[in-house]
Amino acid sequence: MSTAPAVPPSPADSDLVRAARGLPVDRTPVWFMRQAGRSLPEYRALRAGTAMLQACQDPDLVTEITLQPVRRHGVDAAILFSDIVLPLVVAGVDIEIKPGVGPVVASPVRTVADVDALPGLEPDRLDFLATAVRRLVAELGPTPLIGFAGAPFTLATYLIEGGPSKEHARTKAFMYAEPEAWTRLLERLAVSAATFLRVQVDNGASAVQLFDSWAGVLSAADYAARVLPHSRAVFDGLGDRERGERDVPRVHFGVGTGELLPLLGDVGADVVGVDWRVPLDEAARRVGPQRTLQGNLDPAVLLADRETVDREVRRVVEQGRAARGHVFNLGHGVLPETDPGVLTHVVELVHELSQR
Amino acid sequence: MSTAPAVPPSPADSDLVRAARGLPVDRTPVWFMRQAGRSLPEYRALRAGTAMLQACQDPDLVTEITLQPVRRHGVDAAILFSDIVLPLVVAGVDIEIKPGVGPVVASPVRTVADVDALPGLEPDRLDFLATAVRRLVAELGPTPLIGFAGAPFTLATYLIEGGPSKEHARTKAFMYAEPEAWTRLLERLAVSAATFLRVQVDNGASAVQLFDSWAGVLSAADYAARVLPHSRAVFDGLGDRERGERDVPRVHFGVGTGELLPLLGDVGADVVGVDWRVPLDEAARRVGPQRTLQGNLDPAVLLADRETVDREVRRVVEQGRAARGHVFNLGHGVLPETDPGVLTHVVELVHELSQR
Repeated sequence: MSTAPAVPPSPADSDLVRAARGLPVDRTPVWFMRQAGRSLPEYRALRAGTAMLQACQDPDLVTEITLQPVRRHGVDAAILFSDIVLPLVVAGVDIEIKPGVGPVVASPVRTVADVDALPGLEPDRLDFLATAVRRLVAELGPTPLIGFAGAPFTLATYLIEGGPSKEHARTKAFMYAEPEAWTRLLERLAVSAATFLRVQVDNGASAVQLFDSWAGVLSAADYAARVLPHSRAVFDGLGDRERGERDVPRVHFGVGTGELLPLLGDVGADVVGVDWRVPLDEAARRVGPQRTLQGNLDPAVLLADRETVDREVRRVVEQGRAARGHVFNLGHGVLPETDPGVLTHVVELVHELSQR
Repeated sequence: MSTAPAVPPSPADSDLVRAARGLPVDRTPVWFMRQAGRSLPEYRALRAGTAMLQACQDPDLVTEITLQPVRRHGVDAAILFSDIVLPLVVAGVDIEIKPGVGPVVASPVRTVADVDALPGLEPDRLDFLATAVRRLVAELGPTPLIGFAGAPFTLATYLIEGGPSKEHARTKAFMYAEPEAWTRLLERLAVSAATFLRVQVDNGASAVQLFDSWAGVLSAADYAARVLPHSRAVFDGLGDRERGERDVPRVHFGVGTGELLPLLGDVGADVVGVDWRVPLDEAARRVGPQRTLQGNLDPAVLLADRETVDREVRRVVEQGRAARGHVFNLGHGVLPETDPGVLTHVVELVHELSQR
């Protein structure tokens, strides 16, 4: 009989990181997008009186809010509490997050000159982020911290529309009518997203997730030609993986991306997030055997009765076996009205169903 | 040489109806969802001072607004100017359309009792509709009028959410948690949609379109089990096609339905509307050879430069050749900021590209 060496467990050996790399796991890892947020009473208490973008730049608040769901639910990963517009705000773009609305941009980007006038993100403005990540990594021990950044396209939609949008019509019109300005805008956003992620990895984040929430509003042809290269540039900006530079698992996420799944591997992601519209076994066929899948319970299912929740969780775990690796998650963020007890239950159920 | 009989051309012989039935056409027919509406200055002038739901019940306004885009653009079909919540409003449900928001329901449906309390739609309240349709058919001559109704699922989302929604979380929670009430609600909505369409066909509409705009938020499994039967009930409610009862082409439309396309034939539609996410040649494979396709230019393309518009129109016409028949349209409604001159140009270009 051999004895295991007495080294403390490390996030690099966690089920999350192993599943992301396609390695065998003890149990299917599970975390939830927006697990740190409004579904938790302790979050609402902590955030009271502090604006969202202020909270995201306060290392104490970021640390505590990021840890809350790990303590409460026993999820297999923490995700940095942040907002996709934060790198823009830190760089000096005038953006406010209006409760019940979303990010509102004071001077939307409508011309080439607007693009050129966007300030770049100086790494020395990210001390708050480095501090928060270092503290989190120390507190989390063997639990991995997933770094967070918004993808160039989704950030561009906010800058161009001036706020949240249903149709993203201005964004597409700009993309079609001003291809050079479009490219320059997305290149700049890719540079700042990479800067934002590098600081997180350099301070100990064990994986990164790029949120391209609205990529699914594009046709595959437009996505491939006008967006994908810029998302890839973000991941490439982490360094040369072959030489081991910041070689942490990379997760790509978007909603309504069914038609884009065959392309998403080219972004350079190890893990492709899938929403509830495409069953994971079908998603595995579209994405191909070289990627792990993340998802894909419909967040609205968590508002239903326990029987429905359990049935749907079982289905997702079962269909996830078709992928080379599966990270259980929702297909989009936790809805604010979700009962946190249900989230804890889902973590337990996924672990129980997938225990080797 | 034979001589054609001297009968006047009829909507039943129009390219729209022929394409919908999979018969040869002279040119690809083209119309636009929301062609009657805010993109037209003559519409904005006519609507000034009249609330949306009031306008939809005024036969003079309905007739004139429906005719405006036919006169201006030379489209191959008129679509009845209406709103998907109108049958509910006529039945007595308290709904207001708030400008910039959408339909707002005074007392949302949250319980079984709420479902049972919903008033049914009495056909004798639809005289305004019969009048408008008769006048339109007389005015339109050989140009077909497409009848209009909202599908049970999309109507249910407004009733349950109380208004427009991004996540449709309450709707799904109700669907999962209250399956019997859900079925009863959708059955009732199917009955009133069928009533609404029957009046239009009985007064001369040459085709009908069922708008299930938000069906794409559902997984295929949920759509098949909990929604599809009710959309089929609407079409079945038109009568027995085998016996020639109201045997007009039936169009089904929804946004983001890529995963649902293999199912949509089962709704009983002759024509399946497709948005810009799925190219029409791929959509033809998913829908199968027994249906005509309608779509699928991204409405945002119409905000771009002329070169982009022309390139994308050519692509859609080309890809549409893969279907047994093609009705050119947008993938969703005309955006209010669209230059009407571009719409006229698209009609001419589609006709030119498809002239036999």
